Order: sequence, then C-alpha cells, then structure tokens
Amino acid sequence: MIADKMEAYVTGSSLIRAMFEESKKMAAKYGADNVFDFSLGNPFFAPPAEVKASIEKYLAYPDQVYVHGYMNNSGYPEVREKIAASLNRRFDTQYAGGNLFMTVGAAGGLNTILKVLVGAGEEVVAFAPYFGEYGNYAANVDARLIVVPPSPPTFEPNLEAFEGMVTAKTKIVIVNTPNNPTGVIYSADVLGRLADILRRKQREFGTDIYLISDEPYRELVYTGKEVPWIPNLYENAIVGYSYSKSLSLPGERIGYVVVPDCVSDSERILQAANVMTRTLGYVNAPSLMQLVAADCVDVPVDVSNYRKNRDLLYGGLTDIGYRCVEPDGAFYLFLESPIPDDVEFSARAKDFQLAIVPGKVFGCDGWIRLAYCTSYDKVERSLPKFKELWESVK
Amino acid sequence: MIADKMEAYVTGSSLIRAMFEESKKMAAKYGADNVFDFSLGNPFFAPPAEVKASIEKYLAYPDQVYVHGYMNNSGYPEVREKIAASLNRRFDTQYAGGNLFMTVGAAGGLNTILKVLVGAGEEVVAFAPYFGEYGNYAANVDARLIVVPPSPPTFEPNLEAFEGMVTAKTKIVIVNTPNNPTGVIYSADVLGRLADILRRKQREFGTDIYLISDEPYRELVYTGKEVPWIPNLYENAIVGYSYSKSLSLPGERIGYVVVPDCVSDSERILQAANVMTRTLGYVNAPSLMQLVAADCVDVPVDVSNYRKNRDLLYGGLTDIGYRCVEPDGAFYLFLESPIPDDVEFSARAKDFQLAIVPGKVFGCDGWIRLAYCTSYDKVERSLPKFKELWESVK
Repeated sequence: MIADKMEAYVTGSSLIRAMFEESKKMAAKYGADNVFDFSLGNPFFAPPAEVKASIEKYLAYPDQVYVHGYMNNSGYPEVREKIAASLNRRFDTQYAGGNLFMTVGAAGGLNTILKVLVGAGEEVVAFAPYFGEYGNYAANVDARLIVVPPSPPTFEPNLEAFEGMVTAKTKIVIVNTPNNPTGVIYSADVLGRLADILRRKQREFGTDIYLISDEPYRELVYTGKEVPWIPNLYENAIVGYSYSKSLSLPGERIGYVVVPDCVSDSERILQAANVMTRTLGYVNAPSLMQLVAADCVDVPVDVSNYRKNRDLLYGGLTDIGYRCVEPDGAFYLFLESPIPDDVEFSARAKDFQLAIVPGKVFGCDGWIRLAYCTSYDKVERSLPKFKELWESVK
Repeated sequence: MIADKMEAYVTGSSLIRAMFEESKKMAAKYGADNVFDFSLGNPFFAPPAEVKASIEKYLAYPDQVYVHGYMNNSGYPEVREKIAASLNRRFDTQYAGGNLFMTVGAAGGLNTILKVLVGAGEEVVAFAPYFGEYGNYAANVDARLIVVPPSPPTFEPNLEAFEGMVTAKTKIVIVNTPNNPTGVIYSADVLGRLADILRRKQREFGTDIYLISDEPYRELVYTGKEVPWIPNLYENAIVGYSYSKSLSLPGERIGYVVVPDCVSDSERILQAANVMTRTLGYVNAPSLMQLVAADCVDVPVDVSNYRKNRDLLYGGLTDIGYRCVEPDGAFYLFLESPIPDDVEFSARAKDFQLAIVPGKVFGCDGWIRLAYCTSYDKVERSLPKFKELWESVK
C-alpha cells in the first residue's frame, strides 16, 4: 500500500503524463515525423561545443577522485567562486562563492530552499500561470500553495489581487521570469512594485517574506527586454538557476541557488541548505557537471534556433487568427483557446497530430501552452495543422 | 527565519561536521600528510578505466540530445533493461527494466521510496549500528525511526529485540549489508529468520511491511561470505543500490531501486516513484552517468586496495590490543572504544592526528568507526599513532 498522499500526486500528474502517452500513440499511428509535439520543454539542440571540451579536459585530469568524488555538499568551492564572479560581473553584485550552493537542477534547488524556509501550514504564493510543480513542492513541506489569478493579456504578476492574498503565514513568493508557460519577462517596474508590497507586508506582520526567483530561462531572450536581477530590487530575494536550458543539459541535473548576504538570516539558510541537500538525498550536485558548468559559465547562449521557431510560430498562428502572447523569452508560446474549454481544445488538437498542453495545468483555464523547442521544419509543417484545427472549431 | 524543524537538523549534523572541521584544522596544524583521516567514506581510488572509455564513447555519440537530455523520469528504458539483465544473471531472478528506477545515488532512492510508502506517523525500523541519515530520511516523511539495539560482537540484526518492536504502524524495515559502520555481512540464516518474523507480523496486523535493503557496498567483499539477495528471501523486499563505491563515483549521484513484481502493490509503487522523483526535485538520475553505469554493469570491482588496507588495519589494531569486528565487506572497521565514552575517545584521538567517528553517530555508544578508504601508506603510518592513543588511555 502506497502512502495516502501519493494517490493525489499520481492522479494529479496524469494530465501531463496522458499527453506524453497520447503523443507516443499518435507517433505509432501517423509516424513520428507526422506528429507535432509541442508538449515538452526538452531542449532540442545539442549542448555547445564548450561542454564537450570541458568534459574531455576533465577526463584527462590526473586526479579522477577529485572529478568524480564527494566534495562539500554545497558544491566545489572553486566552482561556486567562479559562478559568483560571473554574476558579479553581470549584475554589479558582490557575491562570494559561499553565497551559492550547487543543486540537482532548479527543481532540487527549489525543494531544498522550501525545506529550509517553510514550516508546515505556512504559505507559498505563486502567480498564475505558473509551473504546475510548485504545488507539489509546497506539498512536500506541508505548505499551502496560494495562487494569484492571472492578468491577461500582459500576464505580468497581478499585484492588485496579490496584495490582498499576502498573510502573516506567507513565507515565500515565487516568480518565474522569463516565464513558463507565457514567455513573458516580468518588467523592473512591476517587480519593483511587488518588492514594495512585500516590504510593507513584512512591516505589517513583523515577518520575513522571501522572494524566490526561479529563472532557468534567464538567457533565453529574444527581444531587447532586460531580465531584472531580482536581488537588486528586493533584499530578501533568493535566486534559483539551472543549466538545463542555457547549456542544453536538462538530463544532467545541474544548477545553483544564490542567497545574498542581505537576505534575512542568510548565514543560517546557507548552513541549513548544506545539511538539507544531504538529508533530502541529493547529497551534492553531480560532480563532473559542476566542473563543466564552471568552465562554461560565460559561454554565450545561442538563441538563434529558438528565435527562428518563435518568429515563425508566433507569426503563423497570429495570421491564422489565434490570439497569442508574443514571447519575450523562454521557449514557450501562450495562446488563447478558441473555445472556452482548453482541455477539450487540447483533446481536439490530437485529431490534427498536434500535442499541446492545456493552460489548466498552469492554473490558467482557457489558454494553451506550446513548447517550441523543436525543429524549424516541424514548426513549419505544423502551421497548416493549426489552421485546420482553427477552422474545425470556428 | 529558517523553519523550526531545521534547527534540529542543523544541530544534529554538527557531530560529523565538527569532525570534518577538526580534520581540516589538524591538517593546517600538522600538514595534510601527517593527519590520518578515517572519518570519511569517500572512495580514495579512481574509477575503473571502463568509466572513462564509456564517457568518451558517449562524447562521440552523434545524438547529444539523447546523452544529456530528459528521458522518462525513471531513467532510460535501455539502461534499466541492461541492469535488470545483469541482476537476473547474478541472482537467478526475472526482473524487467520496468522493475527498476534510476536514482540520484542511494540516498535519492531511499528518500523516494520512503516518500512513496510511508505516511506521517508510521514507523521505520533500523538496526543499530545504522547509517545516521536514516533518521533524517524518516523525518522527511514525518515518520518515526525505531532503532533496534545492537548485538555485539556479531552485530547481526538483533532479532529478539526486533520482534517486540514491530507494530501495526511499522511500514518499513531497513537493512544495510555489507554494513556501514561495522563491515559485517548479514547471514542468510539471520535474514531468513528476519523474513519469517516479518511474515508473521504482516499476518498478525494485516499490514504490508516492506524490507528495504540499502546495499551500496554489495561488491566490496573480502571474505568468501556471500551477500544474500534479499528479494529471494522475502516477498516484500525492495533493493536500493548506488555506484558510488563500486565504480568510485560518489560525487556523480547514480544508483537505482529494484521493486520486484512480487512486492505488494509493486505496480503502484513504481508508478508513484516515477512521479515522486520529479516532485521531490531529483527529476531523473544524471543522464550521462546512467549510460555509463549501464556500460559498466558487469565490470568487476577491484577490492585489492581496500583488502590490503583492511588486513593491515585489522591486524595492526588487534595486535595493539583493540577489540575489533573483523570486516567482511564495505570499507569500515568497527572497534570498541577502550574507554566507555566514544565521543571522548574520538576527541582524544585528535591529539594523535587521528580523525575517527564515534559510534554514537550510528546509534551504538562505546564503539568507533574507521573508514579505511585511504592510502596504504596512511594506514601504515597511523598504526604507531593508534598505539600511542591506546597507551594514553590505559
């Protein structure tokens, strides 16, 4: 007998899993080449050449115990220092290596920081549309996820609604920018006002409210729009990062968390994180990939392929008549379902060999997410299918 | 403010951490070469040549998205099939790839399986001396760790005490063989009687009691003694494995869990584990290292260096007068503290440049663990220090 709580998890995960299974079934029926899978956020492009060069370097390194062995649970000190130095150059900050801990991807980092900060019954706030796993991460620490309703068409954080939803139990607020699923980059103006609200609420309740910035898509930007460095806008901000997208290494599980000195109780947080990575079973981020990440810390991210896909898809869908959010970053496009029920619309899309994800999964009914981290050819050939789908519901 | 629960974790971890810190301080004082660190279970020897060859093979593999990308959260199907086939050859079993899920080391596997099986308030039983982290893993799922007292000098599971400690709330019993910290291999006879007790208790309470075998040291064996394959002795047995020790890859975080078909509710357990690896933030075991593990699945483990250390250390300490458990496997030696207080004895050892771990950490007061995964030279030069230490307390 599995634990009672598990039943809800397994059932809750079924919508996305059903999509994977459907995509496989469609591939069997129509041939993989004739299925247009926009469901998965799995980078389609290989890692940059620097990744291979770095691995080769470490394969030739004399001390293989260093390369594959245990280190401090928070990561190799020299890796953390190199990443801190890169952040300092980019964001005009003064972090030391000790302000960072290396993590098993962004998900491992978020789970660790939630475990460190959030007690049972406390509240974690997210802005819809949001990455659906946040609800499960909150449940892992017996916290409640409070979801702020979406604000179409900009899909910036809905601050009016947010202000009324912060309570004395609010421990963490999560933002994700560039955003999954909308591709929107939150503006410095809105984030600044969000910070003002948090400061006001901290004073009102006499609490610390931590703003966690989950930013695996930081470098995937297509417009001139700047991605603000959130710790420069708010004192109690913690940043979670992953190399999954920027270095196309999602399977390798490598990322980090930054806890600046100005964060309330930062020293205790970093100490506790060092213990919790072990206690939660991650122990440390994979060793070789830590070293690779440090070597590649300033490798420019080539977004040209994603940009081509984005331009083609956004242009093509808009021409057909779909109402889309123009993505500034990430590799997602958010479009309004032409019929009110997004789950129903996703189901109908399968008849046209299209695998797409309903907005319901992200707490945003009536919308659809497309992940365009696929081949240009697939995007091109999908457009007639999206047109047929459009005509079938109009 | 960190979560209340964290305080206990951070404080609880201080004994081992203090040992690390002390070891560093000693190195600064006496020079690293003159400090004899027996505190850490970090393999001292490099991975076998096959690991490097496998990584090189995959660096040249045309599809780098396959090598570094997402796969099914439970791991590459072909990796799991290859490991299952190897287990079937070795243990006369009939596992399919689907009976396994790949994990972020043994610790990631144990945490996942506990999350899947154990509800709040249920009980997890471990036999002292036990790997201290089990208590934290149980706390992660709000379970109680029930510790069965040790049974020196054999340090096999204390079945008499155990029988009275199994209750209707017992969900999991953990065994770890070859054992950390004693090096003892549990015999088929004792494990068979343990299985009989569990069957009887299952009938008595109408419950399922899962036996989890944590066996990262399976191949590190120095005597002719066989390490029983526990699922062949008990129906509700689940095995957690890690390549940390056998392939000297502790920093890479790669292992697996086997849930045989005969395990009660096995299909639901494997389904839930597939969701939980994601939800707990592991997502999947590191991709490249999964592929490497599959390539190296039948690489013989060279224990010759550990064996030399073991023979020298056991012989030398026994000659001095220490009462030691002769290790059958793993790379630990357990010795009786010559003074009743093992924490005090560990503290005194520092005066002789010896870093050793008190048995208290493993729920076994009055004993000491030495990790002999170090150089032969260090073991050799440590013996006069152990003699001086012995004389200082006699």
